[in-house]
Amino acid sequence: MALRGSLSRFLQSTLSSCQHSRAHSVAIVGAPFSKGQKRRGVEHGPKAIRDAGLVERLANLEYPVHDFGDLSFQHLEKDDHFMHVPYPRTVGRATQLVSGAVSRAVEAGHTSVMLGGDHSLAIGSVEGHAQQSPDLCLIWVDAHADINTPLTSPSGNLHGQSVAFMLKELQDKMPDVPGFSWMKPFLKARDLVYIGLRDVDPGEHVILKSLGIQYFSMRDIDRMGIQRVMEVTLDHLLARKPRPIHLSFDIDAFDPALAPATGTPVNGGLTYREGIYITEEIHNTGLLSAMDLVEVNPTLGGGPEAVEATATLAVDVIASSLGQTREGAHVSLQEIPAPKEDTEQLRL
Amino acid sequence: MALRGSLSRFLQSTLSSCQHSRAHSVAIVGAPFSKGQKRRGVEHGPKAIRDAGLVERLANLEYPVHDFGDLSFQHLEKDDHFMHVPYPRTVGRATQLVSGAVSRAVEAGHTSVMLGGDHSLAIGSVEGHAQQSPDLCLIWVDAHADINTPLTSPSGNLHGQSVAFMLKELQDKMPDVPGFSWMKPFLKARDLVYIGLRDVDPGEHVILKSLGIQYFSMRDIDRMGIQRVMEVTLDHLLARKPRPIHLSFDIDAFDPALAPATGTPVNGGLTYREGIYITEEIHNTGLLSAMDLVEVNPTLGGGPEAVEATATLAVDVIASSLGQTREGAHVSLQEIPAPKEDTEQLRL
Amino acid sequence: MALRGSLSRFLQSTLSSCQHSRAHSVAIVGAPFSKGQKRRGVEHGPKAIRDAGLVERLANLEYPVHDFGDLSFQHLEKDDHFMHVPYPRTVGRATQLVSGAVSRAVEAGHTSVMLGGDHSLAIGSVEGHAQQSPDLCLIWVDAHADINTPLTSPSGNLHGQSVAFMLKELQDKMPDVPGFSWMKPFLKARDLVYIGLRDVDPGEHVILKSLGIQYFSMRDIDRMGIQRVMEVTLDHLLARKPRPIHLSFDIDAFDPALAPATGTPVNGGLTYREGIYITEEIHNTGLLSAMDLVEVNPTLGGGPEAVEATATLAVDVIASSLGQTREGAHVSLQEIPAPKEDTEQLRL
Repeated sequence: MALRGSLSRFLQSTLSSCQHSRAHSVAIVGAPFSKGQKRRGVEHGPKAIRDAGLVERLANLEYPVHDFGDLSFQHLEKDDHFMHVPYPRTVGRATQLVSGAVSRAVEAGHTSVMLGGDHSLAIGSVEGHAQQSPDLCLIWVDAHADINTPLTSPSGNLHGQSVAFMLKELQDKMPDVPGFSWMKPFLKARDLVYIGLRDVDPGEHVILKSLGIQYFSMRDIDRMGIQRVMEVTLDHLLARKPRPIHLSFDIDAFDPALAPATGTPVNGGLTYREGIYITEEIHNTGLLSAMDLVEVNPTLGGGPEAVEATATLAVDVIASSLGQTREGAHVSLQEIPAPKEDTEQLRL
Repeated sequence: MALRGSLSRFLQSTLSSCQHSRAHSVAIVGAPFSKGQKRRGVEHGPKAIRDAGLVERLANLEYPVHDFGDLSFQHLEKDDHFMHVPYPRTVGRATQLVSGAVSRAVEAGHTSVMLGGDHSLAIGSVEGHAQQSPDLCLIWVDAHADINTPLTSPSGNLHGQSVAFMLKELQDKMPDVPGFSWMKPFLKARDLVYIGLRDVDPGEHVILKSLGIQYFSMRDIDRMGIQRVMEVTLDHLLARKPRPIHLSFDIDAFDPALAPATGTPVNGGLTYREGIYITEEIHNTGLLSAMDLVEVNPTLGGGPEAVEATATLAVDVIASSLGQTREGAHVSLQEIPAPKEDTEQLRL
Repeated sequence: MALRGSLSRFLQSTLSSCQHSRAHSVAIVGAPFSKGQKRRGVEHGPKAIRDAGLVERLANLEYPVHDFGDLSFQHLEKDDHFMHVPYPRTVGRATQLVSGAVSRAVEAGHTSVMLGGDHSLAIGSVEGHAQQSPDLCLIWVDAHADINTPLTSPSGNLHGQSVAFMLKELQDKMPDVPGFSWMKPFLKARDLVYIGLRDVDPGEHVILKSLGIQYFSMRDIDRMGIQRVMEVTLDHLLARKPRPIHLSFDIDAFDPALAPATGTPVNGGLTYREGIYITEEIHNTGLLSAMDLVEVNPTLGGGPEAVEATATLAVDVIASSLGQTREGAHVSLQEIPAPKEDTEQLRL
């Protein structure tokens, strides 16, 4: 009932035919890894999200769900800092492993759901997805832009540099970080949209502006409303042609009041309803092909209630991305059932 | 200052003459009843709402307020399940009692305020109201649609079936539930609007869609904004002609963070401000004739603070429905008072 | 990307040239005073705000920051009630002291930041600012209008009467309150805008309506959205000509869930994001010349976490008013750094 741009209307009608026609199945890939940053605990994210009922909730959606369990990561003993970047080879190896798993899942026809772990893993997840779908586009929902290079990063942490490894336009700005020779940049800046930014480093701001990347900070959401933000996002990415979407969702995009169990919370985040609206709109395109849910750290947040709230929120995000609706839905039931003769007998 | 549709503008101008002209009085009808569902405690709702200062708050509005105390409900000993529906005769008798009380209150010229108790009571409240005002319309603010029939209800609980008993269009889909022979369906589907839905059962979804019922889920509120939702709601119900409004407000329409002391909380609910805005807009029509405030359960929510917050919120909803404003108001005072001669003497 | 009125667009382009051209420095003036109301504790507000890291946060913005410490207020022994107004001479003397300090700070070229203390202090802060900038305009962000006269005030407290002392139009409605002979009304009603009102006394409502003051209650924000509220606010105040802005920010404008440590909390307040958006928009005019941050009371709110949250929020409001952004920013860094030859040696 809301007003929508003509481009968006065109898109909707184009998509509506294929939207519900595909057979889906979901592959869950656990990635218990935390060396893209310095705090331990986020490697327990996949367990926390599963314990919050992920598989049961997805089963309600009537997809076949395949939980492939957790990947097994190694900590390399000989892994000196590169510049001030810690664990470069360990992270490089981990992302390569994730890449292979996601590539195989997508190749097998599944919608891939990668559970982090820290956000450095998205380097592997998006790269693996891109092996199967070179024309994918990327929606990055996060308080942070994660687009520092080793030369601009204040902390050195690789979970704040994930997108810089992906972008073709940054190829000559990136030093050769040891551990990452397995991959090449594969994404154009125009095929990326950020939602939720509110803590952007100066070097990241230079990169965003220099490359003309489309982003929606919390200020933009305040100004435009989430409905319009999603309309512009999908028009930007899909107007030229429908193509596979990769959704990389950092739980810290939400307000810390909702998602306290995470490593780098920032005030003034997404509301529950905004987060769910984003995923509903992505689901409604019928084009979601792989997603990440990262940075749930069950050792933070101040107690079991905070962890459960954060992990349950992660499940809500995944379920909503895959078709759970607030509107309700009916699949098998097609008409209102009427009383039969034999229930008549129950009348007084 | 916001833009409004022409229909709405017409309505506003039509209403504005009568809006403040009626003499109002308020009748409070307590309904301590909980057999429309399986959890006990919600029968203490009326006491919790009164303890939160309901009568004092309404007194500020300068209405005569008549508190008729609590109705006295009986639990029938011989009351076997009908299909999987528990307590059918007990609930039927209770709704009949509520119907009589509300009918008498409206007949006497009061705006009726029914305090639940569970939402099955609305069957009686709306029916009793309709006895006096057959052309009433119904605004149902709730996380749930409460429109299952005994044939579609997953739980069997009657508080999730209230609206199905009211609708003429569902007459041939309803079995004859024992205890309800005192009433007939009285409401057309087009005279009903839902606001706040976010947990709709498949059978309910079929009914909503089959009957073309106007509803605004939380997703619709995210998309359209509460201002536009209320504009469309009032246009839908009142554009043909101004007529009495029945507001049936389930406290679980609010987010559980605001209203934790309730039986079936669902994440992602109304904000405080959205809830108050809904009631302000309804008050401003000058057409509110009866209302329900249900499902405050002071034995849930996790402690006295949660209960007090929930009950105080219920008082805010009722007071705002009856004219309490955030804008401020002045009734008796008509101009700015100026210092008199004798206060001049106080000058130094 | 949001739609803006043509007046606003004109304004933006007019302002954009001067916006970033001024050299700024900030003067912090602590005002530990609480006799404008009856609860003690708010005199510890300046310490709480400084302890939450105010100076460090402003240092990040690369302004010179001068903290002039706390003013020293006296409690006058012989200070009988005037009518039912407590401490009139003590408050009068305090506001005079604040006026002098703010006047000197603005005269010296600083943006003045007055830390309260209660909101009666704004009489002095705005008056002192007006001594230097007679054409200033005033944005009052508050749950309350603080525009009672001694003749309309239910409580008698002067922190609820601050604006009445300032307005030329109320001159003949104000008795001669002892302690205030040092000042005369200096502000026209049309040069004032309120944002956030939700608890307005009847006498205040008469004054607001009689003088045609532009105000945005929480209901208006619900209806129009904060983006449009700020657009109308700035057009109202600045469309005729750009001129200095005084921002007087009462922390109780925020929802009590965010700012519990304050004396007169009212439900249904600003969200974090709305509060920050207001200050970002004011900063973006380039015209903020002085501000107040008042009513942080570290003895209220229910514990150290509540106090820290409230004080940190106060710091966020001040930092955002002075240029901290959620979008990110880059000042010195102008292009994306590329790897140099000697970092090449680090390649494997």
